[in-house]
Amino acid sequence: MTSLKPPRPSARTKLLDAALRIIREKGFSATSVDDLCAAAGVTKGAFFHHFKSKDDLAVAAADYWSTLTGGFFAAAGYHTHADPVDRVLGYIAFRRAIIQGPVPQFTCLAGTMVQETYDSHPAIRDACARSITEHAARVEADIAQAMAIHQPKADWTARSLALHTQAVLQGAFILAKATGDRAIAVDCVNHLYRYVAGLFACEPKVEETNVSP
Amino acid sequence: MTSLKPPRPSARTKLLDAALRIIREKGFSATSVDDLCAAAGVTKGAFFHHFKSKDDLAVAAADYWSTLTGGFFAAAGYHTHADPVDRVLGYIAFRRAIIQGPVPQFTCLAGTMVQETYDSHPAIRDACARSITEHAARVEADIAQAMAIHQPKADWTARSLALHTQAVLQGAFILAKATGDRAIAVDCVNHLYRYVAGLFACEPKVEETNVSP
Repeated sequence: MTSLKPPRPSARTKLLDAALRIIREKGFSATSVDDLCAAAGVTKGAFFHHFKSKDDLAVAAADYWSTLTGGFFAAAGYHTHADPVDRVLGYIAFRRAIIQGPVPQFTCLAGTMVQETYDSHPAIRDACARSITEHAARVEADIAQAMAIHQPKADWTARSLALHTQAVLQGAFILAKATGDRAIAVDCVNHLYRYVAGLFACEPKVEETNVSP
Repeated sequence: MTSLKPPRPSARTKLLDAALRIIREKGFSATSVDDLCAAAGVTKGAFFHHFKSKDDLAVAAADYWSTLTGGFFAAAGYHTHADPVDRVLGYIAFRRAIIQGPVPQFTCLAGTMVQETYDSHPAIRDACARSITEHAARVEADIAQAMAIHQPKADWTARSLALHTQAVLQGAFILAKATGDRAIAVDCVNHLYRYVAGLFACEPKVEETNVSP
């Protein structure tokens, strides 16, 4: 019989997990290689075996973040709705539902890191942009299908609405950080839900869809 | 005759102006006292004459930011609209219009600093929270008046909508930083405008107001 124990995470994975946690707590610049090694329980030698520099780790952390969150969202239940409007609203409701626990746990690595790095660290900025825009592109696909089926009178594009959903979430995280009150972030996502439901519910064809919050 | 030349800024003001620019460019942690002194053209002695520490400067910078932006918004034309809905929509249109020039110029000091400091620097976090929530409170006053007059069917409060306007703006800035494309930020503010117009235009009483974007 083979062992059922999960494989132990590698030093690389431990460092990336530590980066996700610590950078979301205090930002990229304030996070030192020593902090990451201490949190991961690995040596500095191991760090520089896996990463050329802290910048290199940050790019890898953004890509790791994209992979982890990509899998997490792909597994969520909202994809099973037949009507794409329900998938879009289900996505927003899911984003609202996961605003739970301490702030660093529900906030976004990419949105945090890009604030400090957009002007000075182009490779990190690009990795953060990839993370945010690739996630938005998945929401955009459902919005585009919803527009094709329900044909709302729209002077906006599926892409701009998908990016707007990300702006509201990123901004909601900032308000939660500033006030320490995650209910404010939840309220912002409620406003987003109401907006998107309204954009599609304007059309009589949407009447049959379930858009209750 | 008295001189019409404006008074030269003090070392303190020069340091605060430098902080606004540099912290919006690269964040709080990456900004050193040396950076600030070099940019302000003042000595380190002058810095520590005016500020106990970099943290102390950051709190003062957030308060200075609130004062500057408070005066800037108070002088804007949208306050002259008779209908409070027009003042709220005028505010949003004004926010959209000032998304101009390089990213550090149109983004928010408080929203940038709070990302790095919310967990580790409570005094800075509180100063950033004050800046954001006091600004939101001015928008809230117009929203509350608009609700009193137009009585939209609302399961939301004036406060939550005012905070939502700030979340959209802060998130729009993050997307502009990530993508380098300020048109994306403008699009987000357009979505916000459409949402707020829709919340009030639901009521027939709003028909006479001009809510075109």
